[in-house]
Amino acid sequence: MSTSSLLRNSIAGERLVHVMAAHSPLSAQLAEEAGFDGIWASGFELSALYGLADVSLISMTQHLDMVRAMADQIALPIVADVDTGFGNAINVIHVVRQYERAGAAALVIEDKTFPKVTSLAVGGRQELLGIEEFQGKVEAACHTRRDPAFMVIARNEALIAGLGEAEALKRAAAYEEAGADMILIHSKKRTPDEIESFVRAWKGRIPIVIVPTAYPDMNAERIAALGKIRMVIYGNHAIRAAVTAMQSVFARIRADGGIHNVNKDIVPVQEIFRLQKMDAIEQQEARFLR
Amino acid sequence: MSTSSLLRNSIAGERLVHVMAAHSPLSAQLAEEAGFDGIWASGFELSALYGLADVSLISMTQHLDMVRAMADQIALPIVADVDTGFGNAINVIHVVRQYERAGAAALVIEDKTFPKVTSLAVGGRQELLGIEEFQGKVEAACHTRRDPAFMVIARNEALIAGLGEAEALKRAAAYEEAGADMILIHSKKRTPDEIESFVRAWKGRIPIVIVPTAYPDMNAERIAALGKIRMVIYGNHAIRAAVTAMQSVFARIRADGGIHNVNKDIVPVQEIFRLQKMDAIEQQEARFLR
Amino acid sequence: MSTSSLLRNSIAGERLVHVMAAHSPLSAQLAEEAGFDGIWASGFELSALYGLADVSLISMTQHLDMVRAMADQIALPIVADVDTGFGNAINVIHVVRQYERAGAAALVIEDKTFPKVTSLAVGGRQELLGIEEFQGKVEAACHTRRDPAFMVIARNEALIAGLGEAEALKRAAAYEEAGADMILIHSKKRTPDEIESFVRAWKGRIPIVIVPTAYPDMNAERIAALGKIRMVIYGNHAIRAAVTAMQSVFARIRADGGIHNVNKDIVPVQEIFRLQKMDAIEQQEARFLR
Amino acid sequence: MSTSSLLRNSIAGERLVHVMAAHSPLSAQLAEEAGFDGIWASGFELSALYGLADVSLISMTQHLDMVRAMADQIALPIVADVDTGFGNAINVIHVVRQYERAGAAALVIEDKTFPKVTSLAVGGRQELLGIEEFQGKVEAACHTRRDPAFMVIARNEALIAGLGEAEALKRAAAYEEAGADMILIHSKKRTPDEIESFVRAWKGRIPIVIVPTAYPDMNAERIAALGKIRMVIYGNHAIRAAVTAMQSVFARIRADGGIHNVNKDIVPVQEIFRLQKMDAIEQQEARFLR
Repeated sequence: MSTSSLLRNSIAGERLVHVMAAHSPLSAQLAEEAGFDGIWASGFELSALYGLADVSLISMTQHLDMVRAMADQIALPIVADVDTGFGNAINVIHVVRQYERAGAAALVIEDKTFPKVTSLAVGGRQELLGIEEFQGKVEAACHTRRDPAFMVIARNEALIAGLGEAEALKRAAAYEEAGADMILIHSKKRTPDEIESFVRAWKGRIPIVIVPTAYPDMNAERIAALGKIRMVIYGNHAIRAAVTAMQSVFARIRADGGIHNVNKDIVPVQEIFRLQKMDAIEQQEARFLR
Repeated sequence: MSTSSLLRNSIAGERLVHVMAAHSPLSAQLAEEAGFDGIWASGFELSALYGLADVSLISMTQHLDMVRAMADQIALPIVADVDTGFGNAINVIHVVRQYERAGAAALVIEDKTFPKVTSLAVGGRQELLGIEEFQGKVEAACHTRRDPAFMVIARNEALIAGLGEAEALKRAAAYEEAGADMILIHSKKRTPDEIESFVRAWKGRIPIVIVPTAYPDMNAERIAALGKIRMVIYGNHAIRAAVTAMQSVFARIRADGGIHNVNKDIVPVQEIFRLQKMDAIEQQEARFLR
Repeated sequence: MSTSSLLRNSIAGERLVHVMAAHSPLSAQLAEEAGFDGIWASGFELSALYGLADVSLISMTQHLDMVRAMADQIALPIVADVDTGFGNAINVIHVVRQYERAGAAALVIEDKTFPKVTSLAVGGRQELLGIEEFQGKVEAACHTRRDPAFMVIARNEALIAGLGEAEALKRAAAYEEAGADMILIHSKKRTPDEIESFVRAWKGRIPIVIVPTAYPDMNAERIAALGKIRMVIYGNHAIRAAVTAMQSVFARIRADGGIHNVNKDIVPVQEIFRLQKMDAIEQQEARFLR
Repeated sequence: MSTSSLLRNSIAGERLVHVMAAHSPLSAQLAEEAGFDGIWASGFELSALYGLADVSLISMTQHLDMVRAMADQIALPIVADVDTGFGNAINVIHVVRQYERAGAAALVIEDKTFPKVTSLAVGGRQELLGIEEFQGKVEAACHTRRDPAFMVIARNEALIAGLGEAEALKRAAAYEEAGADMILIHSKKRTPDEIESFVRAWKGRIPIVIVPTAYPDMNAERIAALGKIRMVIYGNHAIRAAVTAMQSVFARIRADGGIHNVNKDIVPVQEIFRLQKMDAIEQQEARFLR
């Protein structure tokens, strides 16, 4: 079964689908081992890995290479974060072909204009695409996929853009009409109220995805109580965990003048060997090296 | 001043040069902020990032792209781990041209045969290059560098290969004769004895590099007491720290059914923004976007 | 002397600067051997090499890798065709940093919106950026370059967009004001009249670049008579030559049932060896392989 | 049907299978249009495209990216030239996984040692792998393929290495025993005698591939008369054709001081548009851009 079908089955199931951000095959493997249901191939995390702001500087090639390398190492479905699709509907066609071949199970396209700008650059710039223009991108994506199970998720930034719930609902309905398989509704409010209100008001047939970075109290229990939400994406916790640990370990090594103290507080090298599948290599060497 | 000259100055100075492994521009930035003197662009860490065993599967292109991306984000010297140089002396010429252009300040070439094998595959395979053949590689590297300050460090695997201290010393002297700027002497003993003995016996003029992964008690104090060692590389602590934290955070999110608890134990998103230099982007937007 | 300074010197000289399109290091080498003054790292030719339409599908990574690989093999200045700069002024800052490091001597940014569309998609879409917005991109590029000799060439599509000579002149003046080093004025008319009229009317201090693909009769003699034009780019003749020959040779091999006839009409393998610098490799082998 | 199965069917058919070298998606498309049966993703041609000697300088990543880009544009089977497999049997496992995912239908592994050296470096260096060691590589390749139709072709360099026909036959039999699907027997003699003698003496069940670069008179007619040979690879005629034409066109433009004369002797820009599938883009724009 393709990972796209696997993901569709999970969405159609009863348990909430938990998807963890990753910025590398290694972080994707760790999420798989931890029991997550899918991987969020996050543009934000990959930008951060490169030390770059998440404003459309990372190229499709760089992101795609990472998705492909993840797909080589894990069996979990990969949900590719392609931002606006790297351009217009024609770019989206190229994107769907490439990401499907690279092993993604789904992609999320957002209704902002390309390139991304920071939220402080608002002066009329954080604007969204026209509804019809974004419908064209969703239709192009759906039309292009070879595997009908490949999921096209429309990310709706109307709440973020301050356009209000009515506009958000109108857009969500339009994106469903264009063929989207799910609606990712995004909010930067520090409480779940805005999202909860949207979800309650949503009358569409397709389910909802949320990314509760800003409102972490929205846990599985509250989501289940609310209904309609079938996927939750933990959007940047892999890179935040990694940074936290590297800052701490690096500072300690500097302070200690060596690794004699930190050594016992981090996983041993053998654990990295395990993640690199050294056992399999040794078996292959025994069998095929002469 | 080039980062090569910067590194040479540090080596010529009085303080021990502490070099931290990195697998990404982000981890390199964190090491720079923590006060390390250089970055070890580790083949082992990069292999692990890709979920691959460190047996010559990562290509030069993949490693070089990472070195270049690091050099874009940090001012610290980068010491590139090029294993055996991806082939013979002719490959080394290509390697030096490419890594110097990519922004590396130094490279470490080791005296094993290509491709690497695991230590269990020993059956005669963990063998070293002939001394003269490896001298040819060192000479090729030195001859090719454009910036005479670019450092060529010869990694001596004689102790690892079980060939004993006499062979290790003989090789070190031969590599110095061929033009190496430093000797990296490697040991997998759990105590520093083997290394300490080698260092005491070393009569060459060029200084020594160690990688005390296996013998973490060899800290700055003991190194200073010993003399001759001018660089210590912490070879895999960035990736081990990152894995430790991701495993823990991922497990907690799974157990908690959400991010409500871990959120306070990892750096906030704002810290990632800072590392991505979002401030600079906002200033550029204010100045150049119209 | 940097290739940027070399190019500036040529522009400041008396001879017209002839720049040939290339899609690979090999085609760049051939142009260098033929005596051209610079290489046009053409987005159109690279898109064609990949079998893709020139509508912003090739990523910056793919184009940059090719520019870097060209710079590894030739001494000529490379003029990088970066289309609209892969986004807005913030992307342009990223672009200038990356292309300058990759070895480009100049870049050409055009005043269209991203992504490119085909000319048939005109319905209001082939529109240009606002003048002030494009000035911001030019200023960002000039502000970012490290080598003050690195050239920023503004490509003016006003004639192509059907906006007329007055608008083209107004834009050219605004781009000069923003810091552009040259104006590339583009036309798709089958005769040079439109271009000649623009050039005669141009009162700015910075010189002009043309790409006479559509009006091939505009040769060096006519250009010299006209004055003000200092660079001519032959925008797609490398790939068109290559395609012409491959179509012919492939057809003959099919018809002949073998290579016995074509063999004498194409360069021998030894000529490819020469372009690959096999002599240098043999000398290196003799010197460094043991 | 997969391209691997397609290729197997051709091999099992009656017509000789003609495979043309390509160094880009574009050259692969041209070979497809010309009616060839498959594409030789040539390491030699790709090295030449980069201006590099064919001595293991191009990385697996660079070659793989090109194979993947070709597979995106053509329906023909791609026979990937992976030289020695970029290392030992463990590298071959990695190679088979990657190339199969990238869309190759077959790969050719040769029995030389890595890295390649030039033929002048012979001094005992142009040596071949031990038979058992190479059998291990063939077995590893066969064991790794997911699609049982994916073809593993063993390239036998015994004649090139001057080891004689008996050794070549012995090796071919050993490679068949290890699971190879075909034997590529290579010769640099200027006449077909050496190859013809080998083919006549070959008693194995698997068919033979030849690359008649050095002995171009070995055309389809003579091959058919001989029997047993089922595939002929034209190993470098795409790049030789392209170089021939670029040299000529570049020289003429220089001599003419412009493109006014060459313009009529090369395909028009519209032919490049056709190869870029601009028609499809225009239809997509009409349908999805709003």
